[in-house]
Amino acid sequence: MTDDTPTFLPPAIVLVRPQMGENIGAAARGMLNFGLDHLRLVAPRDGWPNPAAGAMASGAGRVLDRAGVFEDTAGALADCTRVYATTARARGLTKRVVTPEQAMREAHAAALKGERAAILFGPERTGLENDDIARAEAIVSIPVNPDFASLNLSQAVNLLAYEWRRAADAPVAERLELAGAEPASGIELEKLADHWEERLETANFFFPPDKAAGMKLVLRNFLSRAGMTRSDVQMLHGVMRAMVRWKERG
Amino acid sequence: MTDDTPTFLPPAIVLVRPQMGENIGAAARGMLNFGLDHLRLVAPRDGWPNPAAGAMASGAGRVLDRAGVFEDTAGALADCTRVYATTARARGLTKRVVTPEQAMREAHAAALKGERAAILFGPERTGLENDDIARAEAIVSIPVNPDFASLNLSQAVNLLAYEWRRAADAPVAERLELAGAEPASGIELEKLADHWEERLETANFFFPPDKAAGMKLVLRNFLSRAGMTRSDVQMLHGVMRAMVRWKERG
Repeated sequence: MTDDTPTFLPPAIVLVRPQMGENIGAAARGMLNFGLDHLRLVAPRDGWPNPAAGAMASGAGRVLDRAGVFEDTAGALADCTRVYATTARARGLTKRVVTPEQAMREAHAAALKGERAAILFGPERTGLENDDIARAEAIVSIPVNPDFASLNLSQAVNLLAYEWRRAADAPVAERLELAGAEPASGIELEKLADHWEERLETANFFFPPDKAAGMKLVLRNFLSRAGMTRSDVQMLHGVMRAMVRWKERG
Repeated sequence: MTDDTPTFLPPAIVLVRPQMGENIGAAARGMLNFGLDHLRLVAPRDGWPNPAAGAMASGAGRVLDRAGVFEDTAGALADCTRVYATTARARGLTKRVVTPEQAMREAHAAALKGERAAILFGPERTGLENDDIARAEAIVSIPVNPDFASLNLSQAVNLLAYEWRRAADAPVAERLELAGAEPASGIELEKLADHWEERLETANFFFPPDKAAGMKLVLRNFLSRAGMTRSDVQMLHGVMRAMVRWKERG
């Protein structure tokens, strides 16, 4: 790292006038699950620290221990260059509306430049007030079911933290979990298909004769399925050997 | 809607042996927040109905009222064509691993075709067991912070439901196009595995006895592999029947 590499600054999660300590604790847990640990509280209703929050944090107590506490929203945002307000209702304010994904991509871009973004969450019952929303450059709209839209505070924090993690992760290609197992090689698959074909030929599986070629193709295609491991191949050899031994015992 | 438009079947959320009623209620709420209402419970620890679940559901009680209750995982998956297991650990089973986003895109593609997908969630403390994971075509891996990975059950359900909503809202062009052949259902795979297991038992394949349980698990996992079609299932029934007839001809 050189002198001109900016410090990476993950976004602050800012809970404005949160009511229930339990929700603060659950929010801290959801944050840390996805690698966020910078929590700020604006005028928490029941004061701070709050034992109910600690009880719910289950291992994320360090997020609570380091939480900043502020008297007002302006104080909590003093060092933040990009502010996003999570709210279901814009209520007369003209704002850009972004998805959680978009907000966290922007927060990640800010973090890389050494800038702190903030995501504002309002009190459980009422949500953010216009005075707070007015401090944000954009509204984050979570795509809830319009017939059942009331999202729990900690669930909302959890979703944004999840989107943070998605933004921070390099694109992850779909991968096959081989559980330490080695994939079968082409020649191993070929030998397996030959073995099965030979035994099934003897057992008169490929019948009637005019369908035999098609059936062999389907069988070989099946055995060449992506993700066949060496131990799968061994098992399928074993299945066929077991049936032959059973026959031979008469 | 014309006669040949398939019924749209959103995925089932399947909680396997859930312990806390509160988590079942919170899961139902998170589901409904994002438009999912098909909940199935496998052997809930405290029986069913559970008043603690109702108290936590806050308005999502109708999801609980309509929840299906099953004795075992196989029963809960009988009509499901695509099964996903949420788990942090693959523990020795070879599986495709997908993101929540990918899983829900696939579930949405299935829903459009009139097929029911299922997302399995394990008990709070222990997660899914290998017997359950073996029934899934893929593992859903939530990209948690490795230093603080334990996700609350209802938070995990909430994230998957959120991804469902994102998949359902996505423009059609972005959706995953899935190839043509008819996929086998859970009950078809279950019957195939039962058939093979019974015949191989008779043929003394599961030997020595102390390895039998492990061998059966590997076999069942293999047969649940992604992309098994109905014609694959028919062929594999046919293979076993052919070997039996061959034996019986002496």
